[in-house]
Amino acid sequence: MKKVNLAVVGATGMVGRKVLEVLEQRNVAIDNFYAFASARSAGKKLEFMGKEHVIIELNEENIKKHPVDVAIFSAGGGTSATFAPIFAKVGTVVIDNSSYWRMDKSVPLVVPEVNSDALKHHNNIIANPNCSTIQAVVALAPLHRAFEIDRIVYSTYQAVSGSGVAGWADLENGLKAYNNKTKDEPKNYLKPIFNNVLPHIDSFLDSGYTKEEQKMIDETRKILCDDSLKITATTVRVPVFNSHSISINVNFKKSFKLEEVFEVLRSADGVVLMDDISKPLYPTALDTDGKDEVFVGRVRLDDSVKNGLNLWCVADNIRKGASTNAVQILEKLF
Amino acid sequence: MKKVNLAVVGATGMVGRKVLEVLEQRNVAIDNFYAFASARSAGKKLEFMGKEHVIIELNEENIKKHPVDVAIFSAGGGTSATFAPIFAKVGTVVIDNSSYWRMDKSVPLVVPEVNSDALKHHNNIIANPNCSTIQAVVALAPLHRAFEIDRIVYSTYQAVSGSGVAGWADLENGLKAYNNKTKDEPKNYLKPIFNNVLPHIDSFLDSGYTKEEQKMIDETRKILCDDSLKITATTVRVPVFNSHSISINVNFKKSFKLEEVFEVLRSADGVVLMDDISKPLYPTALDTDGKDEVFVGRVRLDDSVKNGLNLWCVADNIRKGASTNAVQILEKLF
Repeated sequence: MKKVNLAVVGATGMVGRKVLEVLEQRNVAIDNFYAFASARSAGKKLEFMGKEHVIIELNEENIKKHPVDVAIFSAGGGTSATFAPIFAKVGTVVIDNSSYWRMDKSVPLVVPEVNSDALKHHNNIIANPNCSTIQAVVALAPLHRAFEIDRIVYSTYQAVSGSGVAGWADLENGLKAYNNKTKDEPKNYLKPIFNNVLPHIDSFLDSGYTKEEQKMIDETRKILCDDSLKITATTVRVPVFNSHSISINVNFKKSFKLEEVFEVLRSADGVVLMDDISKPLYPTALDTDGKDEVFVGRVRLDDSVKNGLNLWCVADNIRKGASTNAVQILEKLF
Repeated sequence: MKKVNLAVVGATGMVGRKVLEVLEQRNVAIDNFYAFASARSAGKKLEFMGKEHVIIELNEENIKKHPVDVAIFSAGGGTSATFAPIFAKVGTVVIDNSSYWRMDKSVPLVVPEVNSDALKHHNNIIANPNCSTIQAVVALAPLHRAFEIDRIVYSTYQAVSGSGVAGWADLENGLKAYNNKTKDEPKNYLKPIFNNVLPHIDSFLDSGYTKEEQKMIDETRKILCDDSLKITATTVRVPVFNSHSISINVNFKKSFKLEEVFEVLRSADGVVLMDDISKPLYPTALDTDGKDEVFVGRVRLDDSVKNGLNLWCVADNIRKGASTNAVQILEKLF
């Protein structure tokens, strides 16, 4: 891999900071590096790969002043909408963590274990999928190739880190309120998340689904290259700091034996099969915190539908669900 | 309602204590009252309806010495297996919270809003269903009557109170360990429940399902009187003290309009419809803590299957999921 000139946009956010950590851990060869952020953070310093870097304010002038090969964006949809095209126009490849470009037909939506072929054609903007979708498709894609998915029912158990520092703070503050016997007054969520479960992630659409649910439906179809896939989703926030879990009910067009499913998952790229009811062994949020793989357990036949299967899928949503996936895309590009 | 002579077996447990509270709150007319428990608790005192009662050791001699009309059991399957028949033999009607008698063909499994007709025939033992199943069928039974259920996919978000005082203590101790930055060493669960999600409730069957999952499947069929219902379940513990939530995906044999579903749920016995995405309004565990109704929200069409529907169902598992349901059975009997 040749040395890459890299910008990280939104370098001070939860995902941005994790991107820097993952780049260091994976020893990505970087030549020039620039950390961009909003005016609020500009001028502050951050350390990356043993050097101190002054954070640069994100504006057109500064983008042109610091030419790079790749810019990883983790700064929200509005920032991506405005500034990704400016980078793209000067020849920088943008890897964008926001949802803004994901469903654009000219933008590849990539999970490297699943559809790195999609990287062949792009107009300098590549989208990183939704966190829950990434981990689900890493587990489902090899099964789809083997047995052809007919329908998926997702129910998620999502960590507060998915809402960034504001979500994390709501859980921390709820915990403090419980300790101090004071009222839990959340700032990010509409209701307390400590000691509670919220069936509400992102805003509501007229259909009654949330945007998060619709993202899982649309993005699974786009990544698996099959608009005919039948999918429904219920996305839910649980009082866990990090790592998302998903209860996946799926049925296939082709018949299979359970042992074949285990075999496919055992040899699947990016998947750790953690399933042994005799111990018992299954993945949980805490087991996967800080890991880059997608963990799968509770794999069992569902005889309530033809060729049915249940599985339990857990991954670190800030690593594989965001930063690691973006860095893997960078690695695939160069 | 005539005054009833009542025994509560397992009066010192989490559900037993809640049974006493619910009896008081609902002003159930009680004549003689006896609190039974294991030898460990016998001799201790408890207050009920303004009087002090000495706890009686549960054994055959004491059962015969204190004849009652009804005995509410909340003391585990082993105790129910041994002692329910002894009460039944002397003419006492047992309302049993354990899973021991539920699938016995001669034992009615009753949720009063759904199948109180089943109380007409019994051999002095009546079973109270599994907590998650109770709340699910209260919401689903009226929809089943209207549109005929074809298949159900359950994914649960269950509170630690479902594991009694030991589960509650694991969450409390995990919280303390987090506060004190010490290691979380759970005693009841196999892994920490604080800041975690455990896809494991009750023990594993050879099928790969847990007993809790199998209970939801079998008991839903029995209560809805339809062994042909296609059902699958994934039951999951979340770090919440009280109230279970369930993501229910269901499809029906008959077609329907969403407004008809709302109408059925609005007029359903024991259901509170809490669904308005414009506010937004939906039920959460904290909203339902201490309530006797089953709360339903996030009701929306699922177009990934014919006549499909998603809904979110929340209830206090210690009240409606156990003690209130048992007291409602008592009220129906007399």
